[in-house]
Amino acid sequence: MSAETAGRAGRAEIDRIESEWEHLASLVSSSLPGWSRTGFSEEDRAARDWVLQRMRDAGLDARQDAAGNVIGYLEGEVPGAPDIVIGSHSDTVPGGGRFDGIVGVLGAIEVARMLRRSGTRLRRGLRVVDFANEEGNPQGVKLVGSRAVAGSLDAAALASRDAEGTTLAALMAGAGHRPEELASARWRASDIAAYLELHIEQGPQLEAQKADIGIVTSICGITTFSLEVRGRRDHAGTMPMDVRQDAMCCAADAVLAVRRVGSSGTATVGTVGQLTTPSPLTNTISEAATVTGEFRSPERAELETMQTAFARELAELDGIHRTSSALAWGHLDAPTPMDQHLSGLALAASLELGQETVQLYSGATHDGVAIAELAPSAMIFIPSRDGRSHCPEEWSDFADVATGIEVLLETVLRVDAAP
Amino acid sequence: MSAETAGRAGRAEIDRIESEWEHLASLVSSSLPGWSRTGFSEEDRAARDWVLQRMRDAGLDARQDAAGNVIGYLEGEVPGAPDIVIGSHSDTVPGGGRFDGIVGVLGAIEVARMLRRSGTRLRRGLRVVDFANEEGNPQGVKLVGSRAVAGSLDAAALASRDAEGTTLAALMAGAGHRPEELASARWRASDIAAYLELHIEQGPQLEAQKADIGIVTSICGITTFSLEVRGRRDHAGTMPMDVRQDAMCCAADAVLAVRRVGSSGTATVGTVGQLTTPSPLTNTISEAATVTGEFRSPERAELETMQTAFARELAELDGIHRTSSALAWGHLDAPTPMDQHLSGLALAASLELGQETVQLYSGATHDGVAIAELAPSAMIFIPSRDGRSHCPEEWSDFADVATGIEVLLETVLRVDAAP
Repeated sequence: MSAETAGRAGRAEIDRIESEWEHLASLVSSSLPGWSRTGFSEEDRAARDWVLQRMRDAGLDARQDAAGNVIGYLEGEVPGAPDIVIGSHSDTVPGGGRFDGIVGVLGAIEVARMLRRSGTRLRRGLRVVDFANEEGNPQGVKLVGSRAVAGSLDAAALASRDAEGTTLAALMAGAGHRPEELASARWRASDIAAYLELHIEQGPQLEAQKADIGIVTSICGITTFSLEVRGRRDHAGTMPMDVRQDAMCCAADAVLAVRRVGSSGTATVGTVGQLTTPSPLTNTISEAATVTGEFRSPERAELETMQTAFARELAELDGIHRTSSALAWGHLDAPTPMDQHLSGLALAASLELGQETVQLYSGATHDGVAIAELAPSAMIFIPSRDGRSHCPEEWSDFADVATGIEVLLETVLRVDAAP
Repeated sequence: MSAETAGRAGRAEIDRIESEWEHLASLVSSSLPGWSRTGFSEEDRAARDWVLQRMRDAGLDARQDAAGNVIGYLEGEVPGAPDIVIGSHSDTVPGGGRFDGIVGVLGAIEVARMLRRSGTRLRRGLRVVDFANEEGNPQGVKLVGSRAVAGSLDAAALASRDAEGTTLAALMAGAGHRPEELASARWRASDIAAYLELHIEQGPQLEAQKADIGIVTSICGITTFSLEVRGRRDHAGTMPMDVRQDAMCCAADAVLAVRRVGSSGTATVGTVGQLTTPSPLTNTISEAATVTGEFRSPERAELETMQTAFARELAELDGIHRTSSALAWGHLDAPTPMDQHLSGLALAASLELGQETVQLYSGATHDGVAIAELAPSAMIFIPSRDGRSHCPEEWSDFADVATGIEVLLETVLRVDAAP
């Protein structure tokens, strides 16, 4: 529980944040389950316009850039000093929840208001950001807005297509953004002193350790795969079990291999998203199957070990099921360590505010992965009830949200004070 | 290989049958893979019109009944003597082959022509039938035409709906048939002396035993199931492997349980048709999964044993995966024994024609299952190359087709001669 130690700039106005949260979280698609506000959708557009207005109300000089990022600026006392960036994202996964991303966006705006309320003027400029489409799109590109400002949203990413052939550039343009002017959205590394993001943990570690605040050591590495199994189509009544080449059975065994391999390291995970076969007929043996999934780890070497182990298991499964599997790996995104010095400031801020604080690894990806290429980055986590996220049941207590905001502000003050 | 012993009514005209086969097999849907002529489709209608004409050319008094069955009649010498029925079906599964059903329809018409060519007049009337929609439909009803004549296509079956809500009755009416007059299609048991069906084996047994002809002992029993697994939707990066409630993993384990349970008897099989999850996202753990499949066996008791074993395995899997599964069984169709006396006549006919003949169980369902409720039924199988069926590669040699037709005719003559 949050101790009753207010920071130098006072307390977060939790009732106001809860009412803002209620509004922002309610901007959802009626055609998708849960709390769905996917990137570049109409609801997303409405949410970004609303966030822009909240920033202006908070006294920020706010605008949308070519990628759709909403950026509010608060000038500092020292002209030319690199800025501090705080923020998160307001889009969701389809069927997602109401805290992932939103807490960091509303929290960053509240930090600006708290500075104003307490009459605190920073030495450095403060950028408050709602990054566009962190959660990704049917084109398969994540961290769209943060990669745009970091300069890593390249032409290949913009040209990625969804199943209907629509490019990411077309998706962005359709939402009123300007992918052709993306260069204008780019930030210079020398203009940024630090990136700080407040976020829900999305896992059960803080709750299990009865901690109020988690400071992230590193963000997971990910490697995705697509597996194509080829079997033989035969009559399901007449082909004896011991000579079948059942692609469905090999694919099912591959799902369990992902589970085994994903369980091999201390903090590794492996997950299958989908298993498809060409026909739903039960009287026909599946001649093919597709399995898509991913592995995550805090260590790059462990990702590579899992790749090798999974490929070896598949070779054995092909022998067992008389199938032939083709395994294609997507890009291997190496883990991203957070900046140690900056994380140390956040840890100190949290402890000073009397919070039970732990350091932890993030199994979820965040905009910090893209921004870390540009500037020292750190993340502040608050607990998620039952560790649940990417689901409608996602919940964090507003007392914890307030604590997170206060730790964020205290960290901003420490970064601002540092030479 | 077929021995050079012609039956009493001579040889089948194999060149003519091959050219008829070529035409009938070519009447396929352009929008489906393989050789697809699904029941009550436009191609099916064209095929049935063509079959009707071939029957008339063969000197049969041919018509379509209210269910869409094409029936050709050849009068016998003895008025009022129960008829002999021969035939099969000309529809296919989606993505199917060119021999399943077709061989028995063309073969039955050739039997009528052979009788004519040899000047043989039967004592009994001969009904040559192309049964409607043996393979079933999106409404989930199989053996439509044969159940119609047997009187077992009830109102519930006609009211079955596909995913779009279309009833089987509407599907049939849309193809120009008269489901509301189905009573007129019904046969009286006392009018039928025997049902004989020539068919491809659709499995590898005859080939493995180097046999020319198989006489079927019984047709498989089937029980189908639909399994709903409930898990918990969570973030795939942050939820540790050992506390997940991953419905996808339980469903994959269930697929392998079907394989294990289906392999438990001598001739049992178990097959999964489809495994679906609500979302393809790899960054989200599946909160639900559906698995549809079936078990088959020559023994009713074995079907029940498999049901019990599968349910027991699922209970264990729920424990392992922290999921909860709901298993719903479809109708249990008991195995259908073929008539021993009639099968004995077919066996004797085949042996007399010098064919290497074996008795075997049919793992595939046939119209004989419906007709056996009405009259003594028997089936004559010819080999399938590599045992393959329900796939575009399905093949039987035309020499074997000719042999099958000659054995069918010889059996008809023996039934006709019997008191």
